[in-house]
Amino acid sequence: MNDSFHVYDTTLRDGAQQEGLALSVADKLLIARQLDGLGVGFIEGGWPGAIPKDTEFFRRAQTELDLEHAQLAAFGMTRRADLKAADDPQVAALRESRAPIVTLVAKAHDRHVELALRTSLDECLAMVRDTVTHLRAEGQRVFVDAEHFFNGYQDNPAYALEFVRVAAEAGADLIALCDTNGGMLPTELGDVVRTVIDRTGARVGIHCHDDSGCAVANSLVAIEAGATHVQGAANAYGERTGNANLFTIVANLQLKKNMHVVPDESLAEMTRIAHAISEVTNIAPHTKQPYVGFSAFAHKAGIHASAVKADPMLYQHIDPAIVGNDMRMLVSEMAGRASIELKGRELGYDLSGDREALTRIAERVKDLEATGHSFEAADASFELLILDELNGTERPEFFTVESWRVIVEQRENGTQGCEATVRLHAKGERIITVGEGNGPVNALDTALRNAIGQLYPELAELELTDYKVRILEGDHGTDSRTRVLITTSDGKNEWATVGVQENIVAASWNALVEAVTYGLLRLES
Amino acid sequence: MNDSFHVYDTTLRDGAQQEGLALSVADKLLIARQLDGLGVGFIEGGWPGAIPKDTEFFRRAQTELDLEHAQLAAFGMTRRADLKAADDPQVAALRESRAPIVTLVAKAHDRHVELALRTSLDECLAMVRDTVTHLRAEGQRVFVDAEHFFNGYQDNPAYALEFVRVAAEAGADLIALCDTNGGMLPTELGDVVRTVIDRTGARVGIHCHDDSGCAVANSLVAIEAGATHVQGAANAYGERTGNANLFTIVANLQLKKNMHVVPDESLAEMTRIAHAISEVTNIAPHTKQPYVGFSAFAHKAGIHASAVKADPMLYQHIDPAIVGNDMRMLVSEMAGRASIELKGRELGYDLSGDREALTRIAERVKDLEATGHSFEAADASFELLILDELNGTERPEFFTVESWRVIVEQRENGTQGCEATVRLHAKGERIITVGEGNGPVNALDTALRNAIGQLYPELAELELTDYKVRILEGDHGTDSRTRVLITTSDGKNEWATVGVQENIVAASWNALVEAVTYGLLRLES
Repeated sequence: MNDSFHVYDTTLRDGAQQEGLALSVADKLLIARQLDGLGVGFIEGGWPGAIPKDTEFFRRAQTELDLEHAQLAAFGMTRRADLKAADDPQVAALRESRAPIVTLVAKAHDRHVELALRTSLDECLAMVRDTVTHLRAEGQRVFVDAEHFFNGYQDNPAYALEFVRVAAEAGADLIALCDTNGGMLPTELGDVVRTVIDRTGARVGIHCHDDSGCAVANSLVAIEAGATHVQGAANAYGERTGNANLFTIVANLQLKKNMHVVPDESLAEMTRIAHAISEVTNIAPHTKQPYVGFSAFAHKAGIHASAVKADPMLYQHIDPAIVGNDMRMLVSEMAGRASIELKGRELGYDLSGDREALTRIAERVKDLEATGHSFEAADASFELLILDELNGTERPEFFTVESWRVIVEQRENGTQGCEATVRLHAKGERIITVGEGNGPVNALDTALRNAIGQLYPELAELELTDYKVRILEGDHGTDSRTRVLITTSDGKNEWATVGVQENIVAASWNALVEAVTYGLLRLES
Repeated sequence: MNDSFHVYDTTLRDGAQQEGLALSVADKLLIARQLDGLGVGFIEGGWPGAIPKDTEFFRRAQTELDLEHAQLAAFGMTRRADLKAADDPQVAALRESRAPIVTLVAKAHDRHVELALRTSLDECLAMVRDTVTHLRAEGQRVFVDAEHFFNGYQDNPAYALEFVRVAAEAGADLIALCDTNGGMLPTELGDVVRTVIDRTGARVGIHCHDDSGCAVANSLVAIEAGATHVQGAANAYGERTGNANLFTIVANLQLKKNMHVVPDESLAEMTRIAHAISEVTNIAPHTKQPYVGFSAFAHKAGIHASAVKADPMLYQHIDPAIVGNDMRMLVSEMAGRASIELKGRELGYDLSGDREALTRIAERVKDLEATGHSFEAADASFELLILDELNGTERPEFFTVESWRVIVEQRENGTQGCEATVRLHAKGERIITVGEGNGPVNALDTALRNAIGQLYPELAELELTDYKVRILEGDHGTDSRTRVLITTSDGKNEWATVGVQENIVAASWNALVEAVTYGLLRLES
């Protein structure tokens, strides 16, 4: 491992402070494997001794984690004010974690020493010195997190600089300067980092939070100023506005700063890894996340589409394949024929040879969007529309709906009921079925499956996985038009369909019929 | 208005390019009013002539938008290569928008001129010169967006600089340098901005996207380098990873750069405004958004807790009240009681004298929020809850529901029907009525009015003005829980009620009953 520059992940420790994030030991092991797959140098696993789950993580890691690139770091505090480092049970837990690295946090801001720690500045420095010396002697590498460093430097630069000198002289490999409250801006932060390195000669790292929306930029500016160790969290997890996004930092360094911080082939796994970690944390991925977000390379604008057709790199800062992501064209009212042609190509239809069909499709999209349809998020409905209009293709009719009815009621005893009846024709038969559900759409879905499930047994593989409702033109109360988006899965792939009607139940039914039609089409082909 | 520094909002134009965002004209008018309330100097309303909805927006804005701070800007392209500016219909639409400002976009990157525009660099510069000159002569102020400026400067600095000179000499007030693909990093971007100002002497602005996660920092660095006009979008809406977050930029400038860019009292409205815009766009707010996010000042248990107790500012970069946000301690349910007491006081109920009622209310809110209720936007439902629990008050029962039923159907001839039956008791009578509607909620509303309209004639004054649906826990398809928010007006005031159920019709019914109950309560008192 090249030690000259560190990518240090703190997802499992500082990232876990995010609101709504709760990780089990098994979750932590899964995430650590993903991070190792990305090629980070260090994974901060938690705080053994203070958090029982983290003690357990380090215990299980010894047998269950076979890391290729990364080394584990145990996070903890310096010794208490009234104990020798060797006698402090919290320090003992750090030793016993058997992590090759211990990252000690200590207060570099005088006000925090006085108000929160309630000890003297000299004692705080002694705590750093003793604990670093002790752990080094016991054979662990020590990094020091200088908590609140930047605010501390602003209030009392002499103490902040002395903190760095003491830690370095005691044997810490590096001192990570922490913008704990996340309020710094890049120029000011870069100046402080440069001064610290000038004055102390110590190796420094950088740890940022996003409270000013500058965590990634602050990290980059610190690295330009001489920091050779950068901390961050996967998917920008973290307390408040989150930690610096490790993925964005790594991609920026590797692709825009000519620094080789992870293997190139791992970089191509970054999008998959980001999503895999989201699966473990059960926090919906932020679609607009740089590089790895679902929307990160999604193009909507009409004026962009024709240029993208000429050369995709005209409207992309990098080739999305480098980070394992994809370009996507969104079909919208702002899109002209060029983006419909591109979108068609993405879906496997060459529309360039049929200008008339392209014009018909563009017009239908325009008309439908004027009534509130949106195909941006409904590729399957768009594909069915292409099949309708493109010469030589045909949209299959697996069934023809005659009528449907839903009854929703709350009875005198307070119980609720919901029942749907569907009348349709399929494979020459006229079929009437009913279905119950916990809501009107669920009941209609059940009735439809009851109706055609025996004729199309593959329908059993389809599952509705998401259902979104948007009321359009909210000025008219319940008179408004309703747009429903339904996402359906066959276990391997997902697709989305759209329905628009004044009546929410009718809108849902239209989206449902398209969802099932598209699903049968996929499964039959 | 102080023209020396511009806060220029592009939510309604570039922000609307965000995947999943589709704004009606009414939505755009609502958002413009919110942005004006924040005190931005300019609101880019859209592209009249190219997008029919945007033409309509500028038409309606003339009579329906009464802006206090902001001026409207119409976005558009320079003349076509083969037309005079005066004869170009797209340019005519910009004139006819009657917007005091026109923002012309043109290509500052030679490759784009050649590959996308397919004309010569000289002709492109002539298009800029002619169109700026023409619009200036016609009495509009002109800003120029130099598209792809930074990539263009890297590839062909002579052309990029000439572009700026030509636009400035033709009479453009400023040239906004656009990082259209969003791939720039702060140090490199700042250097280019500084050089452009040195070499051309032109007034420049900055327009960033977040593809490298540096949009906010890039904007700040450009301002440090001399840019005096900054573009951004509310809630960082925008294509791909989004535009630079206007809220974060404004707060950073005002609170950390000593620049007075919006009124201080507007800054305190920023959190409310950010959430109000989310309601209009129906895009769930990003909880980790700097300054205004729900989690932006949320502290989780741990080493922070005692320090926060000693002094909250030890762990906050600013006082959240300055931007209208709140600190939240995620461990403490007591924080909930404090805010319930405050909220009660806001609604006119002194809960401090009744600790038991306060506890009961806090517990019911906690239980209801655990099932998906949200009282943040439903004051009327919250007030009814207070009336239930506070000693000495009583929630009036204007009617008692026995049962209800809705039938929604699509008949064989394709027509749709929707009919609701309501059975209830009011003023000693048992009443059964039916109502028809264009959807289940409209039918229930009609049936309810038919049932009690004669007993409570004041009901005629109430009108449902908005209806919002959010599906919670989207993983379970149509099994999900549904939250409905209904806004009702009596012509003078508006109030919102909430209903949560698995069944969307039942959720709507609950919100409807609370809306009518609250309305009768107001009208009777």
